[in-house]
Order: sequence, then C-alpha cells, then structure tokens
Amino acid sequence: VEQGENAYLKNEFENVHSADISLIMEGLNAEDCKYILELLDPEVGADVISDIEDDTRNNFLSLFTAEELSKYMDKTDSDDAADILNDLPVKVREEVIANMTNQEKVLYIVDLLHYEEDCAGGLMAKELVKANINWNVSQCIDEVRRQAKEVDKVYTVYVVDDHDILLGRISMKKLLIAAEDVNVSDLYQPEIAKVHSYQDEEEVAELMQHYDLEVIPVVNVQGRLLGRITIDDVVDVITEQAEKDQQAMSGISEDVEETDSLWAMARARLPWLIVGMSGGLLGANFLGGFEDELRLVPAMAFFIPLITATGGNVGIQSSTIVVQSLASGGFHGSSFNRYLRVLMVALLNGVTLSLLVYVFNFLFTDHDLAIVVSVALFSVIMIASFMGTITPIILDKLGINPALASGPFITTCNDLIGLGVYFSVAKVLLH
Amino acid sequence: VEQGENAYLKNEFENVHSADISLIMEGLNAEDCKYILELLDPEVGADVISDIEDDTRNNFLSLFTAEELSKYMDKTDSDDAADILNDLPVKVREEVIANMTNQEKVLYIVDLLHYEEDCAGGLMAKELVKANINWNVSQCIDEVRRQAKEVDKVYTVYVVDDHDILLGRISMKKLLIAAEDVNVSDLYQPEIAKVHSYQDEEEVAELMQHYDLEVIPVVNVQGRLLGRITIDDVVDVITEQAEKDQQAMSGISEDVEETDSLWAMARARLPWLIVGMSGGLLGANFLGGFEDELRLVPAMAFFIPLITATGGNVGIQSSTIVVQSLASGGFHGSSFNRYLRVLMVALLNGVTLSLLVYVFNFLFTDHDLAIVVSVALFSVIMIASFMGTITPIILDKLGINPALASGPFITTCNDLIGLGVYFSVAKVLLH
Repeated sequence: VEQGENAYLKNEFENVHSADISLIMEGLNAEDCKYILELLDPEVGADVISDIEDDTRNNFLSLFTAEELSKYMDKTDSDDAADILNDLPVKVREEVIANMTNQEKVLYIVDLLHYEEDCAGGLMAKELVKANINWNVSQCIDEVRRQAKEVDKVYTVYVVDDHDILLGRISMKKLLIAAEDVNVSDLYQPEIAKVHSYQDEEEVAELMQHYDLEVIPVVNVQGRLLGRITIDDVVDVITEQAEKDQQAMSGISEDVEETDSLWAMARARLPWLIVGMSGGLLGANFLGGFEDELRLVPAMAFFIPLITATGGNVGIQSSTIVVQSLASGGFHGSSFNRYLRVLMVALLNGVTLSLLVYVFNFLFTDHDLAIVVSVALFSVIMIASFMGTITPIILDKLGINPALASGPFITTCNDLIGLGVYFSVAKVLLH
Repeated sequence: VEQGENAYLKNEFENVHSADISLIMEGLNAEDCKYILELLDPEVGADVISDIEDDTRNNFLSLFTAEELSKYMDKTDSDDAADILNDLPVKVREEVIANMTNQEKVLYIVDLLHYEEDCAGGLMAKELVKANINWNVSQCIDEVRRQAKEVDKVYTVYVVDDHDILLGRISMKKLLIAAEDVNVSDLYQPEIAKVHSYQDEEEVAELMQHYDLEVIPVVNVQGRLLGRITIDDVVDVITEQAEKDQQAMSGISEDVEETDSLWAMARARLPWLIVGMSGGLLGANFLGGFEDELRLVPAMAFFIPLITATGGNVGIQSSTIVVQSLASGGFHGSSFNRYLRVLMVALLNGVTLSLLVYVFNFLFTDHDLAIVVSVALFSVIMIASFMGTITPIILDKLGINPALASGPFITTCNDLIGLGVYFSVAKVLLH
C-alpha cells in the first residue's frame, strides 16, 4: 500500500471515519503513520491522534516536530489534547503549547494539565456552551452559533450567573422549540446533577450511569462551571475498570497489554506468583509435619488436590458475587442476613459435594478415609465461602480494590486452610 | 416513614430524581412500593418503574391491576415498556396493552415485543424525530416540536426518504443555527453509522464505543429506519458483559445476584464445582498409581499444593491477558509472534520461580527432591502459559465465551497436567 501513491491514498481515506483510520494505523510502523497523517485533512488528523492507542501514539508522535504537533493540538478537543501532551516530555510539551495559535485552546489545555488523570478534572473538556441567566433565547442561539466551530457535540447549554456559578441547563430541544424572546430564566432546568473537579472518575461513572446522563458539568468548590464530561469518556473508564478488576482477579499486578514489553509482562505477573509460591512452600512445610502419617497412609496425599482445588473454586465464586454487589453500589438489607444466606448456600453446596465424594470414595477406597475426605471437604467449603465473603468487604473498607480478593490471595489462603483442615480432621478421625 | 402522612411524603419526593426513588424502593416491601408510586406524578412513576431492578419490579407490579399498569405504560419509553411487559404473564401483558390510551405507544410496543432482548432490536426505542429529505429546516423544527412530548432526549434528527429509508442525520446544533428556509437535503450528514435490528447487543456496544456515539439508528434489511439505541442502554450492556465475564472466570454458570434465591445461587455454583471435584478425583486416581513411591518418599507429597497452585495462577494470568485482547477487538501482528512472546514471558517467570524454589529447597530438603520440584515447576509454568493462551482462542473460535478459559476449567486441567508432570519428572530423576 505504501508506494507513495499520495493521491490514491488521500482519496481512499477521505470517506473513512477517523476511528477506523486509527485502527489501521495501529498495525503500521511509526514512519508510515506519520506519512498517512500528513496526507489527511488536519481536522481529521487531530481526531485520529486522539483516537489512537497511547503506545502507538507515543511512538510516532516522537517523529513530529513541536510545530507540526501544535498544528494538530489547535484542532483537538481540550481533554484529549491535555492527555496527549501529558504523555510527552516536558520540553516538547512546552514547545508545542508555545507554537499553538488557538489562544483559547491554549488556556483550556494549560488549565487541564493541572488535574490528575483519574479525577473528574482529568476527564473533563473545557469546550462547552454556556448562557447567562439574564439572556434570552436568541442570545443563547447566537452563543451556540459562535461556539459551534469549537464544540464538536453540543448536548446542552449550561446556564450560569454573572460569576460563572452553574445554575442549571437548557436542552437543545427546548432551545429549538422556544420563541426567540423567551428569557433563559424562564426556560432553564435548575437542580441538575454535577460533579466536583476532585471527584474520582469511578464516582463520575457511577453517577452518570445512575441518572442515565450523556454529559455532566464539572464545577469547582465554589460551584463555578469548569467543564463537562461526556459519556464516551466514561464508557472508557467503565471498560478500563472492568479490565483492572479482571486483572486483579487473575493476579496481574500492573495494567499490562499483550503489546507491552516482555519484561513488563513478566514483572506484572511475578508478585502474585511469588505470593502463591510462598503459600505453596508454607504448605510443604506444614505437610512436612505429617511425614510419618503419610508414610503410613500414602492415600491421604491422593486427595490434596481435590481439597485445595475445591476450596479455591468456592472462595473465588463467593468473593466474585460480593465484589459485584460492592461494585453495583453496595448492599440492601442487614449484614446478618447476608452472612446467613452465604452460610445456607455453602451448606447446600457443601452437603451435595461431600455426599458425592463420599459415595465415590466409599466405592473405591477404604471407609475411614472416605469419611475423612468428606468431612474435610465440607469444612473447607464452609470456611472458603466465609473467607470469600468477608475478604472483599474488608479490602473495600481498607480502600483496596476488592477484586483482588478473587485472585491468588484468596486461593493461596484457602489452599493453606484446606490443608490444615484436611490433616486435622485426618488426625482426629484416623487415630 | 410509612405512617400514611401522604402530603409530607409527596412533598419530600417531589424534588428527588426518579433514579433515587427507585433506589429507595429497592429496600422496601412490595406494598410500600405501590403506596409510594401512587403518591407520585404518573410521569415520574413511569420513570421509577423503568429504573427499578427487575426482581423488585416484578414483585410489586403484581399488586397492580392491568388498568393501573397501562396508565404508567402510556408514559414509559417504548424500549423500557417492552422490557417490562416482556416480564409479565402473557394474559396481564395483553390486558395492559388493551387498556392503554396512547395508540402510537401501543404500536411501538407491540412492534418491539417481537425482538429478542439481546439484539439491537431488543435494545432500541421507537421514539425518535425523523425528517423527510424534501423538507426545509422550519418543517424539521415543527416536527421536533410535535415530537417533543414523546421523545425524552433528542440527540439528533434522522433524515429519511419517502419510503422511510435512512439517508443520514442532522445534529440539533446544525438545526438550531441554520436559517429556516434551508433545505434538509443541503444540511444533512450522509453516511452515518447504523446497526441492523438483528445484530448482537455486544456488536452494537463495540460500534458505539469505537465511534464515540451517544445514539445510533437501527434499520431493517431494506435500510428502513426502525428506531434508535441510546448510549445509556449500551452502558448497561457493557457493565453486564463485564459481570458475565467475571462470573465466567470464577465458575458461576448462571447470571446470579446476591438477592436471588438460595437454591438459584447454589445451583449456579454447583456445575463448575463438580467439574473441579471430578478433576480432583481423577487426580486422586492418578496419584493412586504412585502409592509405593509415596510410601518411600513421602516428601514428594509436600510439594503437590505448590505445583498445582502455581500452574493454576500462571494459567489464569495468561488467559486473562488473551481474553482482554479478544474483547478489545482482536490481535495485531502474526500469531507466531504472539506465541513466541508468550513463550518468552513464561521462560522469564519459569526460570525466576524455579531458581527461587531451588534455593529454598536446597537449604531445607534433600538435593534430589529440590531438583525434581524445580524442573517440574518450570515445566508446569511453560505448559500452563501455553494452555492459558490457546484455550481462550479456541473457545472464542467455537463461539463460547473465552472468559470461561480463565475459570475452573483451566485450573482443573492445569492441576491434572501439573500432577502428571511432577510425578513423571520424579519418576525419571529419582530412579
């Protein structure tokens, strides 16, 4: 494709959405990305740069000069521009900003660079349409017209007082069907949902999901309107959170992707593997105390994998349910009831599985061991259910991601508890 | 609260958002829910009914007569109304529809009842504003005005031809700032993203995420405009999918919540527990073949938990990364490269962990066993990485949710493989 047929390529890309172009570019090397980008209309180019994945972007942006970059930043939404500039070396960042010609955008970006990436301020864009409470509809429409070039998608017009304090909003629909001389103060909807710039991005996501909002205004502590957060950014937050939880559940300690470096991938996996291994060594140590018993009844060792695996599975099942309850906004009803229910479910499963194993063992091994295994299995299921239920609640109270509780941590604990229970039961029943 | 102080309660709820009222009602019993609902403005009541969780809703809706329900359904968005009616017994559903006075809504709902819940048709709402290509802006605005009462949030005006074939759209912003006599045909944006009614809800979610859309039109096979899907419904789809994946990862086979019945919860957990247990029994059977060896060297049993746990952890880590790649739209680069990378990461971790264990064992147990454990551990890590990588890819190709591959299935397989490798290595090296 890359034979320098400029006119052909340019024509080809003209009817392609920027999101698709960025997808194509992720498969290409940095030089080709730059080459394609320069063929595109700068407006589209800016969108492509915003859409593309961080790693690919950082790769090929290093090929651009600060002047070239500033041309694109002039046309990028302020939230995306701030994110992109945040990833660049400080010197390049300053040069790019100095070269930008859109002064309003520069003010926006410099303001946004202050915020942490994972709070409401870091998610918001500065571009929005606001109207003074003292205006009428026709002044509002003029303002929309004035802002039309800057603001990609206008969801709503925010109403502020003379000090920029957010008072409410007017939907585009209302504005469209109202007479031109109606006053903003008679038309606007007061008491709307809003977030503070310091609020956590997950709180923002929850709020927007709860109220089914496609856009939410961001205010500072005085209630001054700072910017707006749109649902597409929040969808990304939700998706990322789900991925983080999945990784926590599987014992991956950093946010990695398949495209990261080998060493980064290995490093992200090692910590929990070492935790699991230490648990295994502790288990080996514990079993060492039963060397004589094992020599006498080697069949006891046969059921170690059964006990540990079932404990692990039960623990993960229990904790996942609790983690999901926590994520979807906490619990209803008393915690006593909650534990009672957990107990009952564990009882049902515990009895079922223990009976199954007893019948199986009764047919194939000796009677005493069959009883030991079933009693131990039942105890392990009860304990693992309880552990799986309280661990995420405790982690959540401590401010740690409760999804970790479904991961190697709980499995390792349950392995050790399982071994302890199994051999204790054996000691009591076999002597 | 429930002392019959109607006026007080009514006043209290007047300034509360419907989403918050539904949250409050989830903590109340069915009678109280009905009582509160009847105090509210029917418009707000309809929103509350849409917002509330399925279980709570089905509980208290059974207290209403068909006439009462139809009053609310008249004011509910067609997509929510269809979902609610779908959960009612057929007889009640027909009665409710017969009692409704909003005939346009009845047509909408009856149409929507045909679609499966998890396809685009099941997600869409019929309420939308459409304009004929031959109209001018002022006719468009009249149409928005006419529809204003029906359509909650107008995101965009769809442009169709005389046969209702979707041609494109006009944003509210463009409509607002255009002169009244401009023709729709000069203003509209052609070639917009759309979905077919039969498309899967996850495809819809992907498409809307990819193009950052807040609303997408739904067409039939001829391209006729059927309805629209808004981002808030898609956010629910994304959240649900993440929960389903988490449950698949933790071996819960049905979609359950903490509030479901005890038996439903126990039943959802049993299948994978039984799979895990069968694996454990198979393992016991396998170990049975080594009874004499275990009697001779009981220390071999000490490291069974270490081997199985590490295999499980490595397998889950590998498969989670692959599952996330699959979910975020597949892979870039060749599959040979991919396997090579997996191999390298496994090699790094395998060498690190095996060395650690070797050093530990060298200090505390006998030399031969230390070598056996380390060699087995290394082999298990390599095999588990490979299994964890190919299993989700194979499941995905078979049309099964690849997240299952991070669950009890892979753990059980890895337990068995781990035991096999451990004892084979032992047999070779210790004799």
